[in-house]
Amino acid sequence: MVSKEEVVFSVISRDLDAVVLMNAVEPNLDSCFFYATGLTAGLFEGCIAILEPRRIEVITSELESLSASDAGIKISVFENGQDRAKIMKKKLSRYSKIGINARELTVSNHKLIKKLSGGARLIDVSKELSRARMIKQPDELTRIKKACQIASKTCDSIPDMVEEGMTETEASAELIYRMMKLGASSPAFDSTVAFGAKSAEPHYAPSPTRRLRKGNFALFDFGASYKRYVSDITRTFVCGPPSKRQKDIYETVLEAQEAAIDAIEDGVSGAVVDEAARDVIDSSRFSGRFIHSTGHGLGVSVHDPGSISSANDMTLMEGMVLTVEPGIYINKYGGVRIEDDVLVTKNGCRVLTSCSKDMRRL
Amino acid sequence: MVSKEEVVFSVISRDLDAVVLMNAVEPNLDSCFFYATGLTAGLFEGCIAILEPRRIEVITSELESLSASDAGIKISVFENGQDRAKIMKKKLSRYSKIGINARELTVSNHKLIKKLSGGARLIDVSKELSRARMIKQPDELTRIKKACQIASKTCDSIPDMVEEGMTETEASAELIYRMMKLGASSPAFDSTVAFGAKSAEPHYAPSPTRRLRKGNFALFDFGASYKRYVSDITRTFVCGPPSKRQKDIYETVLEAQEAAIDAIEDGVSGAVVDEAARDVIDSSRFSGRFIHSTGHGLGVSVHDPGSISSANDMTLMEGMVLTVEPGIYINKYGGVRIEDDVLVTKNGCRVLTSCSKDMRRL
Repeated sequence: MVSKEEVVFSVISRDLDAVVLMNAVEPNLDSCFFYATGLTAGLFEGCIAILEPRRIEVITSELESLSASDAGIKISVFENGQDRAKIMKKKLSRYSKIGINARELTVSNHKLIKKLSGGARLIDVSKELSRARMIKQPDELTRIKKACQIASKTCDSIPDMVEEGMTETEASAELIYRMMKLGASSPAFDSTVAFGAKSAEPHYAPSPTRRLRKGNFALFDFGASYKRYVSDITRTFVCGPPSKRQKDIYETVLEAQEAAIDAIEDGVSGAVVDEAARDVIDSSRFSGRFIHSTGHGLGVSVHDPGSISSANDMTLMEGMVLTVEPGIYINKYGGVRIEDDVLVTKNGCRVLTSCSKDMRRL
Repeated sequence: MVSKEEVVFSVISRDLDAVVLMNAVEPNLDSCFFYATGLTAGLFEGCIAILEPRRIEVITSELESLSASDAGIKISVFENGQDRAKIMKKKLSRYSKIGINARELTVSNHKLIKKLSGGARLIDVSKELSRARMIKQPDELTRIKKACQIASKTCDSIPDMVEEGMTETEASAELIYRMMKLGASSPAFDSTVAFGAKSAEPHYAPSPTRRLRKGNFALFDFGASYKRYVSDITRTFVCGPPSKRQKDIYETVLEAQEAAIDAIEDGVSGAVVDEAARDVIDSSRFSGRFIHSTGHGLGVSVHDPGSISSANDMTLMEGMVLTVEPGIYINKYGGVRIEDDVLVTKNGCRVLTSCSKDMRRL
């Protein structure tokens, strides 16, 4: 297997001595730190990964040292901030050109690296790191597939778990419970469970008082985390018999999602895929109600580098994993989103989430 | 109620036109953004909060605009990155001195603010922001107390939920399920459920294959998130009858934790409280096995500003909420940690988590 440090340096054309990735305090952790180290357990606040072309090393607190050494990574352990500074100084002063991840490194830690390296040139390689992360390696794919499998199985059991009268947080509790029973290490993110009009808010948080009522849309957007890699799936149901308008919305979103999936293959532009979905919606009577991009990268973080979007156009490539998730949102009425995770292949894509897309009733 | 922008400006002695808080992509969100806005729902990636002494405004994507306007905050909505730049330019170019949160702002977003403000002076006010956040306001305390209540009730039902033979992730699933049924919006962080030797790893992640066996320590470290404010509790149990050594470890940790709680009051140094706990452990036969600090701040993030630590000494003040969580960790054998959340008061502290601290069997 090719190591992550080899992958990272293979996409960096600039002359660098090392790449230094540093976590701040939760939630400000660098997802590249976890990508590069492959560490599955532990929080690693204030810890540092140093990547050289064929070598990786972690400077870690004692708190996390067991997790790191279990993973077979070379580590230096610090006891406190002073001690960490001493170790960083010793290691970093060997370098004159250091790559950093400006998209995730905090301003404070940037200053610290600058100082402790004795004034090395710090060069932003966040674009290159993103590029490296976009193409998934076999060990990453294995974990993503497992996370997708857990979320798909959970999704298929929603009609058995959720019924009229249940609150959004109760339904969210059921989803997470099922995922964890199926082997998830945790939910990948705060699930969206939105009933009725709230399904029109894409990032809505479940309410402990809002109950499912007949005629409501019920939107579930959730995912599993498995050894730090994640899945992200959305399905929308209707409580009781759907109205004509609900059917129209659902069918339009489904058509848009399938058009996007059909358009995906190695070499195609993300903007073209986004357009495939958007065209379906914008040529319907729900024109303009698809208010976000079609998809995003997925991996060690829920919003991994990469997107299917007209604004941030990029060429899709074999080995990328992306979400495909068009939606229609009607303020004060409700919304529908259908989301799958796909692996881009030479001549198309492989859908990694397997849950039914029929319009189902709860 | 005093607004958060008033609180923030009351601790900033420097002459500033505004404080600008900007989120990057999940997980790199600025917890001060959520502290200042009080927003309970939504992700707000790439969104910006602008604080003036008596005014707060949020620049948000359309995706989150409903969540923000529901909260009654003044918002400007952007459609894409270009649009956001235009709005930022218009708003920020009015300022010549802008406070930033260097501890959570990414290097990329720092550059963007610098550019779009037309070269305003960016002044790091992260210390002041931390100071503001440390003293909890009544609206924050209400949410924290609810989060503590949910975690405490859940903790008290562990002996009914967890039994010999269960895996760590199954037990973790039960915890989260119970918390959410009790009204948590989500788990506050990835729970640690650690059986046997793994209880010696403070930030261990639950395994789907590791089962609870007779004689094991079973350590549960978890918390609830309620309207974005969190609780954080740890209890350690024994499966079956405890050994003499287990009892010794447990009693030493409990004594250390109670010594720390007894030492807390307005005006006392965190280092003194840390020492109170550490002295108990270091004068026992488990000397040196308490490998982290005694506690940390708690609020809108799990590791909120503030600590009970010798390395980062600070004076505890009325209104602070902190964890108190000494532990003893013995590599390849196991560990015990007992953690409560406390509110510092004039003459002592109020323990907000209420779960029993007796040594209990599973």
